[in-house]
Amino acid sequence: MSGKIITLAHGGGGIASRRLLREHLLNRLDSEVLKPLYDSALVDVPSGRVALTTDSYVVKPWRFPGGNIGKLAVCGTVNDLAVMGARPLYLTLGLILEEGLTLVDLDEVIGAVAETSKNAGVEVVAGDTKVVNRGDADGLFINTTGIGVFDVAHPPLAGPPRTSDALIVTGALGDHGLAVMSARESLPLKSPLVSDCAPLNGLVDTMRSAGEVRWMRDCTRGGLASAANELAADYGVGVRLVEEKLVVHDAAAAVAELLGLDILHVANEGVILAVVAGKDAGNVLEAARLHAYGAEAALAGGLTSDHPGRVVLETVIGGERIVDMLTGEQLPRIC
Amino acid sequence: MSGKIITLAHGGGGIASRRLLREHLLNRLDSEVLKPLYDSALVDVPSGRVALTTDSYVVKPWRFPGGNIGKLAVCGTVNDLAVMGARPLYLTLGLILEEGLTLVDLDEVIGAVAETSKNAGVEVVAGDTKVVNRGDADGLFINTTGIGVFDVAHPPLAGPPRTSDALIVTGALGDHGLAVMSARESLPLKSPLVSDCAPLNGLVDTMRSAGEVRWMRDCTRGGLASAANELAADYGVGVRLVEEKLVVHDAAAAVAELLGLDILHVANEGVILAVVAGKDAGNVLEAARLHAYGAEAALAGGLTSDHPGRVVLETVIGGERIVDMLTGEQLPRIC
Repeated sequence: MSGKIITLAHGGGGIASRRLLREHLLNRLDSEVLKPLYDSALVDVPSGRVALTTDSYVVKPWRFPGGNIGKLAVCGTVNDLAVMGARPLYLTLGLILEEGLTLVDLDEVIGAVAETSKNAGVEVVAGDTKVVNRGDADGLFINTTGIGVFDVAHPPLAGPPRTSDALIVTGALGDHGLAVMSARESLPLKSPLVSDCAPLNGLVDTMRSAGEVRWMRDCTRGGLASAANELAADYGVGVRLVEEKLVVHDAAAAVAELLGLDILHVANEGVILAVVAGKDAGNVLEAARLHAYGAEAALAGGLTSDHPGRVVLETVIGGERIVDMLTGEQLPRIC
Repeated sequence: MSGKIITLAHGGGGIASRRLLREHLLNRLDSEVLKPLYDSALVDVPSGRVALTTDSYVVKPWRFPGGNIGKLAVCGTVNDLAVMGARPLYLTLGLILEEGLTLVDLDEVIGAVAETSKNAGVEVVAGDTKVVNRGDADGLFINTTGIGVFDVAHPPLAGPPRTSDALIVTGALGDHGLAVMSARESLPLKSPLVSDCAPLNGLVDTMRSAGEVRWMRDCTRGGLASAANELAADYGVGVRLVEEKLVVHDAAAAVAELLGLDILHVANEGVILAVVAGKDAGNVLEAARLHAYGAEAALAGGLTSDHPGRVVLETVIGGERIVDMLTGEQLPRIC
């Protein structure tokens, strides 16, 4: 590589593009499927139904406490497959690089993609790299598209949710969104605030093997409030959350208050809202808490035939309030 | 929709995001798989091997003579699957929208995605929408990831290329790249120059049913020169191109000369370089020329055991020159 930064030539499809691929991508991602550089990757899938998901990542800044855009892109897509009950298998990686990005920074991001993919047991099998002019992409944007499969250990979820079901929230709320906002605004923090960004397919496997999980969603953009409202609206059930059961770290609570944010609306990247059969709730919770990414899991409420389509929070002071979806632009560029 | 432009709230994952989805995407894309808005789409694939490809599109300007970024995103991904021999089946659509993009413009792009998908026989089954700050995405960027399958009518290509094989180039060179450059630079043109952007899966089917096609690549970034050099390098064969057989429209030739570009390096979005068994070359060519997107197809050379790994052009004046891959940043942001 002649220079130390990304130039428009790296996106031109010629010699510079091929070199960038060989020296900064293929050798790190280590996939035999990727290496031939065909126009498409050829991969094997078991017969039948597959899960397919796509996400673009535009988080600002691209490096934040607890991760970077590369780690986030793998986790987010792996988690979207895992919450559908599928086993994440293959990822594609679409890079939009800004002219002037240093190759050291690119290496850091691709290193995180490689490491997180390995941890999650997925393979990056296809990719694409484009370069845009200086000022046009804020460092870099990433798209990851994922394919997951269903097999004996990963059958489709046994839905739909029922009004006797329990709700498990698998982690502390708001750490990701508030860590990113703190980094963006250079907030002076008394205690460290670290993104919870993690691949949750292992946690999901653990929970499912302990009992019947009927529905899951990862609480990303729009936070727990959006996931709970989607659950309520999509199935016409009432969702009851118990505030004192929801885990919020002190640092997150402090920053949320400082920024005037409702923690229920803040994005997480390592928290799942799961609907579990009432009889299995104890077992599933116990299993989740034994997993590294579920240590702070809590039984945080349940479904009810009261207030169908609505999410109601039992507050710590004994009252009730309706939890709405995020309405404004509270937290842009958080993932 | 309250405003007429995209705002950061449309990317927040809350109410504004859901409205944008329902009013500007779901109703146009018309997919039953997409509508439930799960974290992943559930789709059926035949057992075995699938082709998987991803591309991000950052073309500048996003609207150009002959198409827009939406049409381009569908065609590019469909074509990457088709040239592998696969039948394109499903697409994912990742949108990165710039704050301030008008909803009218978004509708135009999504309309092109919908129309082109329908023409190509593919279904958009999963999507994602992010919004970035004004000035950060030049209107919009799109990622499309595609899944193709192999079936009785679409077996894998019968490679590898052999030195007795013929080369077919399926269309006129350079129209896409030069149409985009002309629009970007507002060049005054004597005759119209229109992108050749088209979904080529039907053309590929037609050609394959007429004879043995052993290798294909669509001549996008880096042009015919890059595709031919990749062929030569990947299989250690010599590639011979005959200049007088290559079709170049007058308008394209004029703009290429004006801009000092070698037409062989300019991106196409509707041209395939195909390696065909020598005995079948006549039949495949005839079939291609009867297809709307192959009307200007030509037998443009062949493979040879001379100069392995090299691409040689027989020039119209009777000489020979080596055709190299693009080395610089000749044509940034062309797809």
